[in-house]
Amino acid sequence: MATIILCSLNKTAQTTARRCLIAHLKGLARAGESRLPLSSTHSPSLTPLPGTRWFSRGSSVRFMSHGTAGRSTAGRTRRGALALTGAAAVTAAAAVVGVLANANHFQRAEMATKVAPAVEKKEQEGDILERCRGFMSPPVTDIAVLQERKGEMCTRMEMMIMETQAEFCKALQEVDGGTFKVDRWQRKEGGGGISCVMQDGKVFEKAGVNVSVVFGHLTEEAAKQMRSRGKVLKGKDGKLPFTAMGVSSVIHPKNPHIPTVHFNYRYFEIEEEDGSKQWWFGGGTDLTPVYINKEDAFHFHNTLKEACDKHHSQYYTEFKKWCDRYFYIRHRGETRGIGGIFFDDLDSPTQDEAFNFVKSCARTVVPCYLPIIYKHLNDTVTDEEKDWQQVRRGRYVEFNLVYDRGVKFGLATPGSRIESILMSLPLTARWEYMHEPAKGTREAEMLEVLRNPKEWV
Amino acid sequence: MATIILCSLNKTAQTTARRCLIAHLKGLARAGESRLPLSSTHSPSLTPLPGTRWFSRGSSVRFMSHGTAGRSTAGRTRRGALALTGAAAVTAAAAVVGVLANANHFQRAEMATKVAPAVEKKEQEGDILERCRGFMSPPVTDIAVLQERKGEMCTRMEMMIMETQAEFCKALQEVDGGTFKVDRWQRKEGGGGISCVMQDGKVFEKAGVNVSVVFGHLTEEAAKQMRSRGKVLKGKDGKLPFTAMGVSSVIHPKNPHIPTVHFNYRYFEIEEEDGSKQWWFGGGTDLTPVYINKEDAFHFHNTLKEACDKHHSQYYTEFKKWCDRYFYIRHRGETRGIGGIFFDDLDSPTQDEAFNFVKSCARTVVPCYLPIIYKHLNDTVTDEEKDWQQVRRGRYVEFNLVYDRGVKFGLATPGSRIESILMSLPLTARWEYMHEPAKGTREAEMLEVLRNPKEWV
Repeated sequence: MATIILCSLNKTAQTTARRCLIAHLKGLARAGESRLPLSSTHSPSLTPLPGTRWFSRGSSVRFMSHGTAGRSTAGRTRRGALALTGAAAVTAAAAVVGVLANANHFQRAEMATKVAPAVEKKEQEGDILERCRGFMSPPVTDIAVLQERKGEMCTRMEMMIMETQAEFCKALQEVDGGTFKVDRWQRKEGGGGISCVMQDGKVFEKAGVNVSVVFGHLTEEAAKQMRSRGKVLKGKDGKLPFTAMGVSSVIHPKNPHIPTVHFNYRYFEIEEEDGSKQWWFGGGTDLTPVYINKEDAFHFHNTLKEACDKHHSQYYTEFKKWCDRYFYIRHRGETRGIGGIFFDDLDSPTQDEAFNFVKSCARTVVPCYLPIIYKHLNDTVTDEEKDWQQVRRGRYVEFNLVYDRGVKFGLATPGSRIESILMSLPLTARWEYMHEPAKGTREAEMLEVLRNPKEWV
Repeated sequence: MATIILCSLNKTAQTTARRCLIAHLKGLARAGESRLPLSSTHSPSLTPLPGTRWFSRGSSVRFMSHGTAGRSTAGRTRRGALALTGAAAVTAAAAVVGVLANANHFQRAEMATKVAPAVEKKEQEGDILERCRGFMSPPVTDIAVLQERKGEMCTRMEMMIMETQAEFCKALQEVDGGTFKVDRWQRKEGGGGISCVMQDGKVFEKAGVNVSVVFGHLTEEAAKQMRSRGKVLKGKDGKLPFTAMGVSSVIHPKNPHIPTVHFNYRYFEIEEEDGSKQWWFGGGTDLTPVYINKEDAFHFHNTLKEACDKHHSQYYTEFKKWCDRYFYIRHRGETRGIGGIFFDDLDSPTQDEAFNFVKSCARTVVPCYLPIIYKHLNDTVTDEEKDWQQVRRGRYVEFNLVYDRGVKFGLATPGSRIESILMSLPLTARWEYMHEPAKGTREAEMLEVLRNPKEWV
């Protein structure tokens, strides 16, 4: 609403009015802080009060030159004030789950030849304030900073992941009837995040949608993981300033005929000794059904394929393979689910194009998944089906705790926000000794697909 | 019964009769093999038929000199015939869960000064055949081989772990009323094991007691883990012949007032380039209650302490600390349970003394745990208590999949018997987002102890 009024003013008046509005809303946000318990591990849920609910509580804004972006001297001055006084003291070093996910590199050089120039400028032109109104919470970075840097990739990506979170949460709330618990958390070392969780709802057993925007310096362990990806990174005095941000989500529905979905879209920026920056995108969306439904599988994969095809004819094929390789439970000889797409290290053909591709992917999450939920909303469930679902949930836990690089990285990083990292685990799971479905059953059919990944499109 | 008859014969006649009996029983065992499906992952449960049930199905016996023990040229000729034709083709490289468990080394040099010479010769004098009758299954190694090598540590340890398995399983069967499913499995690379599992019983949600006796050559990954423990090991052409054996168990009862127990006692032998052998013992017993019961905690720890004190006045103190360090869920800042004892690398003061200590520990499992089960057998249970138990089960899964070195080693080793490794996982578990018990509750009391380990004795 504020921006509708601003539209009728001239540019100077618009700027003045916007500043006043920001100051006013910041005041409201600060007033709210006094109700927050110090050092509490529970941030209060932010109820959606238009105009007040979505502002960062930063009380001072300091800007730094582009050259020092990604580096912090005081540990928390980058990209504006993130020293959220009085806010939850929960910290997380790497809740950008999957930020370090690794696999074979896609042949980017070859790909760069066939990119459609579908540059969408809309998000650069849209008003930051107006867009923030729809979010589940104020963005992690102060809005004034986002406005000042609206053309930078960090801002464009943060806005995009906040939008993805809001769009998906709202779609899920609509189908479930419940509401997400929204937790804002801050990372002592720099940055923070917004975790939205719905638990034991009508449709969803556990639904988590997490955004995080973190920065600081790479630890030695993280740097080592970087190097293993083939990135040669030289830090100043061994330190590598970085910014990592992403949106990640895992949805475990109650009905075993509605599959679990996972997606994660992320952006990484790292500054080397000479001040030059390396950046890349990563992400993916994948489906984990309890029973095979070929129609659902086709719909899911085809929707992803259509999004990929807009950007490169080989993206779907390559990223589908990568997904099957990544979500592989080696000790079981099974994939986690029926896949989707997965990619990492995407830094071509241009930053704009890579971002547009990631944005296209993020925008397919709802059309990929929601139709499948609605289709099976009232499917009847037997005890045997529920039992098999619980066994599959166990395998999900095994993958996430044993193999997932994002989880491993998060758990190994001191100061991580564990609840956001492990929000991907199902509410309940089961481990039966020597469980093996009888031949010819639908459970055996599922296992067969997990042992021999198929083409669905 | 067979050995009772043998006792009345002279020595030569006894030997002849025993050989005939073994040949006869082997014939019975082989006859049974034809019923086994080739390449099945399910070994049949061996029902306790006196005289036939407990013999290894090896069809040829070859002995090797002591100097080459622990090394195999054909891959499966060591310690008698383990080429079990027609038997389950299930393999496992490292089901000796915890075999590589690591922690700070206990100061063995200091300890070696105060050992009581309580050498128990009983197990060396007892008749192998007679002792095998009480086992849950034939031992992994051919009985004829065990008889020929009855004085060797590998034999003494294998007999001891088989006895521990049988004693514990029988005690649990008695309290539950159910019976254990007994699976014999063979490891392609050498050795095998016996897994006893009771699932969804009257008292036990899931109870597993596993014996494994494996040998072969250390992989590079395993050798690296060895080196991290401070052992400098030189192999011939990079190969290190080894024998590893142990008994391990995790019992998850249904009633949240009966704690989960875990124990593991193991022996490791490794042959270096020059033919010399390194050997060591490891093990421990620890308790994971859902609620604190000080009386139970005292009983459990005190029983362990009494067993330790017979061997060294510092064992309990040091191994209790080691246990708290080892079973620590770092990302939660909690121990898994209230501990017990844990040790590794025990190779002093003598092999006999170390073995006797391990045997004392193994023999305390039943007196440590069974009284606690009986005490709480009929405790009433609320939904809240059951829920908290499921949350704690989730933490158990987290420890086992993320930190337990035995599990990690097993999962990373190709050909491992996954079902035996993951039999330690509970039947059901739960992950609630941001679960934090209210102050003053019994759940909060439990967490407090897990965050700050206590002295119980």
